[in-house]
Amino acid sequence: MIEKITSATNARVKRLAALCKKARLRKEEQVFLLEGERLYTDTPPAFMKEVYMTDEFLHDKLGGKAPEYCTILTPEIMRKVSDTETPQGVLCVARMPQYRMEDLLGALPVPATVSAQNDMSCVDPEGKEYREEPLLLILENIQDPGNLGTMMRTAEAAGATGVLMSRDTVDLFNPKTVRATMSAIFRVPFLYTDDLIGEMRALRDDYGVRIFAAHLKASRPYDEINYSGPCAFLIGNEGNGLTDAAADAADARIHIPMKGQIESLNAAMAAGILMFEASRQRRAPDHSV
Amino acid sequence: MIEKITSATNARVKRLAALCKKARLRKEEQVFLLEGERLYTDTPPAFMKEVYMTDEFLHDKLGGKAPEYCTILTPEIMRKVSDTETPQGVLCVARMPQYRMEDLLGALPVPATVSAQNDMSCVDPEGKEYREEPLLLILENIQDPGNLGTMMRTAEAAGATGVLMSRDTVDLFNPKTVRATMSAIFRVPFLYTDDLIGEMRALRDDYGVRIFAAHLKASRPYDEINYSGPCAFLIGNEGNGLTDAAADAADARIHIPMKGQIESLNAAMAAGILMFEASRQRRAPDHSV
Repeated sequence: MIEKITSATNARVKRLAALCKKARLRKEEQVFLLEGERLYTDTPPAFMKEVYMTDEFLHDKLGGKAPEYCTILTPEIMRKVSDTETPQGVLCVARMPQYRMEDLLGALPVPATVSAQNDMSCVDPEGKEYREEPLLLILENIQDPGNLGTMMRTAEAAGATGVLMSRDTVDLFNPKTVRATMSAIFRVPFLYTDDLIGEMRALRDDYGVRIFAAHLKASRPYDEINYSGPCAFLIGNEGNGLTDAAADAADARIHIPMKGQIESLNAAMAAGILMFEASRQRRAPDHSV
Repeated sequence: MIEKITSATNARVKRLAALCKKARLRKEEQVFLLEGERLYTDTPPAFMKEVYMTDEFLHDKLGGKAPEYCTILTPEIMRKVSDTETPQGVLCVARMPQYRMEDLLGALPVPATVSAQNDMSCVDPEGKEYREEPLLLILENIQDPGNLGTMMRTAEAAGATGVLMSRDTVDLFNPKTVRATMSAIFRVPFLYTDDLIGEMRALRDDYGVRIFAAHLKASRPYDEINYSGPCAFLIGNEGNGLTDAAADAADARIHIPMKGQIESLNAAMAAGILMFEASRQRRAPDHSV
């Protein structure tokens, strides 16, 4: 029999509402919320912990066949625990993915069949096989949830192997960010770090990653760099840009040449243009600079 | 003496609140709202019609020196007519810019000094001088206000000469869109059209513009095209992509090669990557395909 919650003062309803709003609670429980049919469908089962839906969703979308761990909420309660104005009738609690720095470099387990076909795989000096040439996005203090989500989505599409974030970067598990990732949150390895500069040094010294800081005052246009080999793009806060300490820890500063009177591009846009330039060069090495 | 409005039922307060919410009223009056210090500072005087601010803004930001057409609102009334949760204390009513199709091709009046220095200017077959090689963004039914604003901002930075939009595209004068343009709304010529397909034909036949449709099912990667000469990128709706009619009216369909499992890029991101590829090629012709 499927459990049903009809009281808005139920303790589990209160917990869901708190998980929606409080980053600290999400971190404590190491879970986050997924809202809507799309995320419900796309989420790998291994990450799914609890599922909440309305009767209407259960019958209209699933033909009445309830999934495991399913609890029914009334439409009123669904609205109460939802982050959106017009809830789609399904809400999941998912386990946070956990990664090590190595994962961000693309060193995830490679299924044999993929490995055999994949001519993009490469071997580092110590003989470790990567799925892709390492391409990282390093974010210092990005504050807009939509920007961070768009960056994850774009990073996956550009073939980035991981995203490293300063501790001050907005919470990736914020419901708005999660939606904007279009499920890339389950596929692009990421890490928050208390020591962004230290990790940047380790990336450079231990893994041979060249780090390019997107900087408005840089003299080098981004498209005059050859991005073959392990690379990372460092992107700063929307309003203030990079701190000097972070920019100084990069190998080089680059800028995207702009016309008109726009001061800067949107941070996610800048990250996307840089990552797709690397992607373009890697796809067609004879076209690169 | 500066006029001051202290009653929330004042007819002008009601009109401001309506201008914030109603596209139809904005169109009727041919004006729109600009909110916040940045837009107040950046807006060309020729477009400014009315200015509303709080006493606090007047004294803290302007040292008590009121600009022309200025009316003081109480903080309560400012909150009432504002689109944002924490209003910055200044709101302007601006005249909508008006353009013809020619303007979108870059055929704006060129100041003599700029013209003499500008090695980017070019001459069309009929001898008309353009500021830049024509580069257009053509939008079919974009629905997200933030996306549209980001596209305008990015278009200016990429050196696009104009933005053509189907009538169903979201209102550019929506306060959220206006903010996202970062004032590019005053610098990038744009047009809404009832006949997108007809205008696309005219662009091709009358102005020699090659139109490239961003299409997920296209076989041609975007970076295998040479974007010298007059070009346009056609971008479709966020959820549904381009209609067949619009895609068929383009000269070619192109796609941005993607890795991972992402179905599509954010529409503004796709537009930005395409425009900056054209910008990259035009800046460094010897690097182009």
